[in-house]
Amino acid sequence: MSKDAADLAQDIKWNEHGLVPAIAQDWQTGEVLMLAWMNRESLELTISEGRAIYWSRSRKVLWRKGEESGHVQQLKELRIDCDADTLLMKVEQLGGIACHTGRRSCFYRKRADGAWQVTDEVLQSPDEIYGKTS
Amino acid sequence: MSKDAADLAQDIKWNEHGLVPAIAQDWQTGEVLMLAWMNRESLELTISEGRAIYWSRSRKVLWRKGEESGHVQQLKELRIDCDADTLLMKVEQLGGIACHTGRRSCFYRKRADGAWQVTDEVLQSPDEIYGKTS
Repeated sequence: MSKDAADLAQDIKWNEHGLVPAIAQDWQTGEVLMLAWMNRESLELTISEGRAIYWSRSRKVLWRKGEESGHVQQLKELRIDCDADTLLMKVEQLGGIACHTGRRSCFYRKRADGAWQVTDEVLQSPDEIYGKTS
Repeated sequence: MSKDAADLAQDIKWNEHGLVPAIAQDWQTGEVLMLAWMNRESLELTISEGRAIYWSRSRKVLWRKGEESGHVQQLKELRIDCDADTLLMKVEQLGGIACHTGRRSCFYRKRADGAWQVTDEVLQSPDEIYGKTS
């Protein structure tokens, strides 16, 4: 392991599961695209490969964002907060779609009139994104 | 409890500690200001009072953001992600300072040259913010 990677991991306050939340933000528009989780290995790979690589808490595997959909998040800038327990990535969202529902951002629902209202349109159907239709 | 509040809590996937992460974003500039945590009560209060109210995991109390500093976050819009386990608030950051270090955003350090480099200036000293000096 490089000195950089060793220093990096030491600086971060991992939670009891060895994870930190990582926010992905569009580097140009500032739109918040999603939040997912990273362990030490995924963070080191994110930096070394220059793309967002998360830890999937449900599947318990490294999750190279875009590995199936092609919607890779290219890392433009990596920030850490004052408590060193949250990461912020400015990314270029390839394909313009971060969400598995086919929307630009995962935050496509807004609280209004006592309910979560969908405000963003589906740009591409999940079936099409994930190759279930040709 | 109102029907709205009951529905709200039901919709959300709280973690094993009964919490969800909440991102605060400047409603005008799009800058990500901070991430903190909410439990059910703090979320309901955030909505009813129209300002960010978090749950302090370290102090284990409700944390009315700005209660000491005056740096209240007025809620402009509340969003939820596809998995219903992360909140995004667009806020008006009173005083222009979200971070307890006196900086605009908590994400004031950027990864560069193998280290976390401070990029944002202190706008007001913490002593001044928290009333230790007159």
